[in-house]
Amino acid sequence: MQPAFAAVDWGTTSFRLWLLDAAGAICGQSAGPDGMTPSAGRFPEVLARHLASAGAAADLPVLICGMAGARQGWIEAPYLPLPARLDRLHEAAIRVPTEGDIRILPGLCQSDPAAPNVMRGEETQLLGLPPAKGPRLVCLPGTHSKWVWMDGPAVTRFTTVMTGELYAALSQHTVLRHSVPDAPPTPPDHPAFLAALDLVLAAPAAVLTRLFELRAGQLLDLAAPRDGDAHLSGLLIGAEIGALSPRIDAPLLLAGTGPLLALYAAALTRAGIPFTTADAAEASRRGLALAGSRIWSDA
Amino acid sequence: MQPAFAAVDWGTTSFRLWLLDAAGAICGQSAGPDGMTPSAGRFPEVLARHLASAGAAADLPVLICGMAGARQGWIEAPYLPLPARLDRLHEAAIRVPTEGDIRILPGLCQSDPAAPNVMRGEETQLLGLPPAKGPRLVCLPGTHSKWVWMDGPAVTRFTTVMTGELYAALSQHTVLRHSVPDAPPTPPDHPAFLAALDLVLAAPAAVLTRLFELRAGQLLDLAAPRDGDAHLSGLLIGAEIGALSPRIDAPLLLAGTGPLLALYAAALTRAGIPFTTADAAEASRRGLALAGSRIWSDA
Repeated sequence: MQPAFAAVDWGTTSFRLWLLDAAGAICGQSAGPDGMTPSAGRFPEVLARHLASAGAAADLPVLICGMAGARQGWIEAPYLPLPARLDRLHEAAIRVPTEGDIRILPGLCQSDPAAPNVMRGEETQLLGLPPAKGPRLVCLPGTHSKWVWMDGPAVTRFTTVMTGELYAALSQHTVLRHSVPDAPPTPPDHPAFLAALDLVLAAPAAVLTRLFELRAGQLLDLAAPRDGDAHLSGLLIGAEIGALSPRIDAPLLLAGTGPLLALYAAALTRAGIPFTTADAAEASRRGLALAGSRIWSDA
Repeated sequence: MQPAFAAVDWGTTSFRLWLLDAAGAICGQSAGPDGMTPSAGRFPEVLARHLASAGAAADLPVLICGMAGARQGWIEAPYLPLPARLDRLHEAAIRVPTEGDIRILPGLCQSDPAAPNVMRGEETQLLGLPPAKGPRLVCLPGTHSKWVWMDGPAVTRFTTVMTGELYAALSQHTVLRHSVPDAPPTPPDHPAFLAALDLVLAAPAAVLTRLFELRAGQLLDLAAPRDGDAHLSGLLIGAEIGALSPRIDAPLLLAGTGPLLALYAAALTRAGIPFTTADAAEASRRGLALAGSRIWSDA
């Protein structure tokens, strides 16, 4: 197989590259911890090294998504304003001023002063999900969960909940660090996870009064320290879903991977919210494949 | 003036000692960063040094409140369960098994499995506030804000909101660190503080969707980076008050000090919640004075 271009998902802390043929099939790959932050000031070298490692010619066309296009990244790929058609995302890719054909896909911005928001990377994941006709709402859970309203291929609105980052900050940098052990992923039927979900789903605004109870319950021997991670996951995922549930006005697609997908699916079920799921593991690659094929088959 | 006893507010990270005469007047004092954590394993030496520094005899009776009575402190002073009469708090002080008469006041616990909670130190502040007849609700804003339902001298229920600690964790250990500058205290009429308050007071459950907007608004040049601290303060204080407002069923007393008191007062006013204020700066000392006079005038 002959690669048509290289697809790169260049995040804040990770780098993944695939060589793709004209049909989107993988004919080589390379990955490493060379995210935007550690690559600052040497983006060309990092890319060249991964191209070589995957066995690609140095002048293969390259399509990049993610934080490499941020202002503090390689070259800024300005945000595309809403509504944004993902099937035309490739038209807004910007060329890196260098030899060869290297392009970076834009992120999306919602320039509403009452609800400003940005994404960078998730737009490519969205493009890589199974397409739908008409309105739908997509939940991409994670460090910064995105809830994205779409109409066919167009993103019309979105919001961000910093659930994963809140979990990390609370469990490492507050008094809750004494009560949330490092633990294997919480199973979605964990009683402490479900009990915490029920508490906050019944009264989402009160989640802020529930956080310290995690610590107090353990001090008073009313809760087991080993359940701390399940308890905190339930509070934060439940609060996210509780905050969004009044706004669910279209068929909901939950697009995630692994244990996090399982926890969100359990939480949505507990909340009585209907949804379908999609595996988002390879969504970035599929989105890059689609956008790249449109760029280089047009050429 | 002859000191009758020494009163000590021994917190996690700070130590304050006053020599008090039989009428509660101050006749000497000493303070330092010798909180429970840095004093671990040498509580007697730290206390003796501050007694000497204040000019007290080494065998003066001592009454302590705060984290020195925690399990990981000097000697555990077990939590007093609710309802707890603060005018009888002194009866539950425990003696440190040492020469001289050194006692530590207990904290309070709410052993309700559906809403477990603990306080240690705030009970003494509450005792030091102007007394009231009948029901009242006291808000003590801070690192861990306490909202305390009382009936005369009895604490009947309370809850904790980790507002100050959330502010620190979000502004130092998440992506918001790029958007929340170190700044002088926010004035209570700051437009960004008031705008953020209005957002979350109107929909407290949605606060989790508002946090990332702080970052996005700055990236999109819709908000000024210098306003980041006022914005985050407004979101978190507004969310605290929004979460508690449905539960305000008694006259509200806001007991705080300095800039934080001003911010909470502005937020309560913005929320249309009636309240009175008390200066909590010396409440711990006054509470210790009351409890100590009851111990050593009974003797």
